[in-house]
Amino acid sequence: MQHLIGVDLGGTNLKVALLDKKGEIRKKTSVLTARGKQAVLQQIIESIEKVLEKTGVKKSAVLGIGIGTPGLVDNIHGIVRGFTNIKGWRNVPLKEYVEREIKLPVYVDNDVNLMTLGELMCGAGRGAKNIVCLTLGTGVGGGIVIEGNLYRGSTLSAGEIGHVSVNADGPRCICGSYGCLERYVGNAYIVKKAVEAIEGGRRSIIKKLVEGDLKAVTPRVISRAARQGDRLAGEIWEETGRYIGIVLSGVVNLLDPEIIVIGGGVAQAGRLLFEPIRKTVKERAMSIPARKVKIVPAKLGKDAGLIGAGMLVKVEANKISSLHPA
Amino acid sequence: MQHLIGVDLGGTNLKVALLDKKGEIRKKTSVLTARGKQAVLQQIIESIEKVLEKTGVKKSAVLGIGIGTPGLVDNIHGIVRGFTNIKGWRNVPLKEYVEREIKLPVYVDNDVNLMTLGELMCGAGRGAKNIVCLTLGTGVGGGIVIEGNLYRGSTLSAGEIGHVSVNADGPRCICGSYGCLERYVGNAYIVKKAVEAIEGGRRSIIKKLVEGDLKAVTPRVISRAARQGDRLAGEIWEETGRYIGIVLSGVVNLLDPEIIVIGGGVAQAGRLLFEPIRKTVKERAMSIPARKVKIVPAKLGKDAGLIGAGMLVKVEANKISSLHPA
Repeated sequence: MQHLIGVDLGGTNLKVALLDKKGEIRKKTSVLTARGKQAVLQQIIESIEKVLEKTGVKKSAVLGIGIGTPGLVDNIHGIVRGFTNIKGWRNVPLKEYVEREIKLPVYVDNDVNLMTLGELMCGAGRGAKNIVCLTLGTGVGGGIVIEGNLYRGSTLSAGEIGHVSVNADGPRCICGSYGCLERYVGNAYIVKKAVEAIEGGRRSIIKKLVEGDLKAVTPRVISRAARQGDRLAGEIWEETGRYIGIVLSGVVNLLDPEIIVIGGGVAQAGRLLFEPIRKTVKERAMSIPARKVKIVPAKLGKDAGLIGAGMLVKVEANKISSLHPA
Repeated sequence: MQHLIGVDLGGTNLKVALLDKKGEIRKKTSVLTARGKQAVLQQIIESIEKVLEKTGVKKSAVLGIGIGTPGLVDNIHGIVRGFTNIKGWRNVPLKEYVEREIKLPVYVDNDVNLMTLGELMCGAGRGAKNIVCLTLGTGVGGGIVIEGNLYRGSTLSAGEIGHVSVNADGPRCICGSYGCLERYVGNAYIVKKAVEAIEGGRRSIIKKLVEGDLKAVTPRVISRAARQGDRLAGEIWEETGRYIGIVLSGVVNLLDPEIIVIGGGVAQAGRLLFEPIRKTVKERAMSIPARKVKIVPAKLGKDAGLIGAGMLVKVEANKISSLHPA
């Protein structure tokens, strides 16, 4: 049994991969996620079967299937509690369903947890025991590894770094609280800051890059502008990095991790973003843990979730075999 | 081997107790902490021997000695890195020294970690697996239990909840950062708020309770005033609870603990403090973990550190015996 199957069920794409035990992807498929619960379930089964067929790998050579999805996942029972992008998708017993159809062990977890597991076992976090992962995008998520194990919390809700407050009396966040990190560095807020500044008369090449259509501004465009020396874009990344650094200083003081891995689209701003983050953490966190912690970009990019899903199989199968040694 | 010895080495008092394996204190001694490193080391040995002598318990009936001290402790090697209150106390190999003198296994840890362990095993946290402990005093400290084990972090610095920021641009803290929780709710700041308000003309029975001597104001006096219906005192606890609640909301979103245990002198304000804390967490933290988490006062009071020191022996001796089963 030398192979693993990883499934990354997103709101837009459903990706399935066959991986070896080191986390190398041997074959990968990606389709647009279907609409409606039944269609998605069927699509998962078909995608898994297609990957097996294309690679000629037999089920008996597969250790199991790992599946990542957004939202709250009961990883113990393999039930996806909710996933707003798919209609009717509430309390879906995904593990049970896929096990019945494919007849292989199935493990399910939250996608950010699996990205974290991927980076821990095959990416930027290799060899570390205490890791915090931060994913930047529309939402700002996080995963925590404690003593080598994914930490999920008492209600499986741990890791919501995006909803740690930067300013107690800051602007209202969609979560109901105030001044959350996500409210400052989520994609929409970064874009809004650029657009408002330009509309307010600030000069910036961002406007030229989107040919005057400010609705086309994205974090990627702001990164491009910053790399070309645009002052507004540079300030936006500086400020974004500072906010992230402020919250990470608290995380460093609280959790004293060896490494903080930052992924997601916004992290592609690279040095522009990482320099103010590192500077802020050095200035604000306690000196001993601040000197130790490495703050680095994620390594696995868009495949982190797929690789992590594969690694989940390895982790869970190991647990079972250590309970029932041969 | 049915007994444990706990040592709580503080800047003011050195306490030593003989405990049974359930954490019940059988005999306790307390002396003023001596001055200078050699004197303190000698005092520790003498206090341990005195407790054994007074109880008539033989060393062969003692499983080991647990010692808690403030500051950074290398619990793996049993070395106390620093303790500003005792002159010359830097990089003291406390484990080695006490083992050589007493000929029993010795385990050393940070005092807040041991209070946390005490509350976990014998106090408010019994039966829980994921706990956060917060201690309120001159400083604001914290301890974290993950999956039933004390979590110390990569440089043994984890748990510094007092230095998680409430406001990114708040007042400067002694740690070098800005707007830290300790900067709002440390004893000195609570007292300062009351004194400044009274000096500014606010009416309050606090002034009467200290017979006009505002230097005599303490958190305890402010609690007493609040219980007698004093408006200023009530507002101070309300605001203190709100600040604590804001930081704990972030902790709940990040760590999703089952229980948060709050101890230290200020926690004696009771309901006056706990109500605004709970209200703030309910309002600001994510709903699923916020509904689950219990926020409760510590149960073991001033003995928490001593009991935790005893429990450290039990935990560590168990680890060793599971590595070398009989």
